[in-house]
Amino acid sequence: MVTLEDARRIIAAAEKKAAEIGQPMNIAVVDGGGNLVAHVRMDGAWIGSIDISIKKAWTSRAFDITTQDLATHSQSGGQFFGIHASNEGKVMVFAGGIPLKKDGKVVGGIGVSGGSGEQDSTVAQAGEAAF
Amino acid sequence: MVTLEDARRIIAAAEKKAAEIGQPMNIAVVDGGGNLVAHVRMDGAWIGSIDISIKKAWTSRAFDITTQDLATHSQSGGQFFGIHASNEGKVMVFAGGIPLKKDGKVVGGIGVSGGSGEQDSTVAQAGEAAF
Amino acid sequence: MVTLEDARRIIAAAEKKAAEIGQPMNIAVVDGGGNLVAHVRMDGAWIGSIDISIKKAWTSRAFDITTQDLATHSQSGGQFFGIHASNEGKVMVFAGGIPLKKDGKVVGGIGVSGGSGEQDSTVAQAGEAAF
Amino acid sequence: MVTLEDARRIIAAAEKKAAEIGQPMNIAVVDGGGNLVAHVRMDGAWIGSIDISIKKAWTSRAFDITTQDLATHSQSGGQFFGIHASNEGKVMVFAGGIPLKKDGKVVGGIGVSGGSGEQDSTVAQAGEAAF
Repeated sequence: MVTLEDARRIIAAAEKKAAEIGQPMNIAVVDGGGNLVAHVRMDGAWIGSIDISIKKAWTSRAFDITTQDLATHSQSGGQFFGIHASNEGKVMVFAGGIPLKKDGKVVGGIGVSGGSGEQDSTVAQAGEAAF
Repeated sequence: MVTLEDARRIIAAAEKKAAEIGQPMNIAVVDGGGNLVAHVRMDGAWIGSIDISIKKAWTSRAFDITTQDLATHSQSGGQFFGIHASNEGKVMVFAGGIPLKKDGKVVGGIGVSGGSGEQDSTVAQAGEAAF
Repeated sequence: MVTLEDARRIIAAAEKKAAEIGQPMNIAVVDGGGNLVAHVRMDGAWIGSIDISIKKAWTSRAFDITTQDLATHSQSGGQFFGIHASNEGKVMVFAGGIPLKKDGKVVGGIGVSGGSGEQDSTVAQAGEAAF
Repeated sequence: MVTLEDARRIIAAAEKKAAEIGQPMNIAVVDGGGNLVAHVRMDGAWIGSIDISIKKAWTSRAFDITTQDLATHSQSGGQFFGIHASNEGKVMVFAGGIPLKKDGKVVGGIGVSGGSGEQDSTVAQAGEAAF
């Protein structure tokens, strides 16, 4: 279970980190079914990243993996190359999505988009740490 | 302009009304470009209404009209019947979406989904009033 | 939670009923997140109903309602007319989808497609009763 | 012809192998028309792999080839690079899909998704062997 209260705490921590590094972000949280619980777009964040943040969160839950790790298997020549064409284009294979775990079990995901892959990851990690 | 701070104030007012009437809701706010600023799904709200709340907000901005009013023109026999097939399915023609205005100009939209048409409208109005 | 074992028991009961009424069916079961647990197409059942059965199951979970009841609100003039255009076309507004409940809470859905609305409903009810 | 009885025998064999290697899987079987006959998601298997398993089965039938073999031609620089963008995104170009043959003729396909490429292939082979 990821409640709306959980999602807000996660998003608040991610926003704080985004402000610290000076990069406005889209931040999304999904529950165990991969369904959106909450999303925010910080003022000035890219509008093309609304969709990406939501899909990164979904991807992390859908495959129980960070999208950064998934990326390493999904490049040309990798064992999962082509996975980005599945699920109606919902699979994001670049950094910024992290599974949310409780007692070792994946129960949701956070997705962040709006900066470089490293920035997105840093902000997502801050969010995840607040879960 | 609809800032994230605006969106949060609007959502807070809508959530308060939803709690009062005892119906958990999805609530979404879009800016003047029709792009999502924030979304929340209250605990227990329908997962099928995530998409609908976002699209109601978009529709209200896209046509500068409440989705309830748009509905009256979009039934079979009406002048806009079939509009729901346009815009890749983003046009919602039932109550719950309201334009957000500043100085008489539409600058965004709120969309609510999770109950009857009347409940959705009531909650959306509470949100709009907080803008 | 709807386990694969649950889904198989539900499907077996639905298949038995379909055989009794002499109409081969597509039968699908989704979990609480709306995600498919299992699907079967009985020999001779319509191939166009594969998709419909899965989407009826999803719809019942997504809105906590039978698709037969949703139909009554989704006709032209009804409060939910146009809902079939939402969720990328996943909302089915005709009979054959029933929520699966545990302790009064919706935790999944069954969807049946392959015959008349009445036949689909009858088979779905038989499946639901086995949960 | 791939009957539902065939599909169940194939799936049972694949499930047995998946249990042996300790990796829960999505398993799908399609018929000669590429249309789904049956799908199961084992408890704990990735929800993002529902779609992939069905599309791997389709791909194997659609091109009369294992998706592992198709992968070798579909990487950047290969003769089929870009094929994953065709057919509305239904073409999966990574291991886990195998054609089902009868008297040397392809009459269906099995698709498995939920682990590494090697695991998916191993489980799909076990399923195919039961046909």
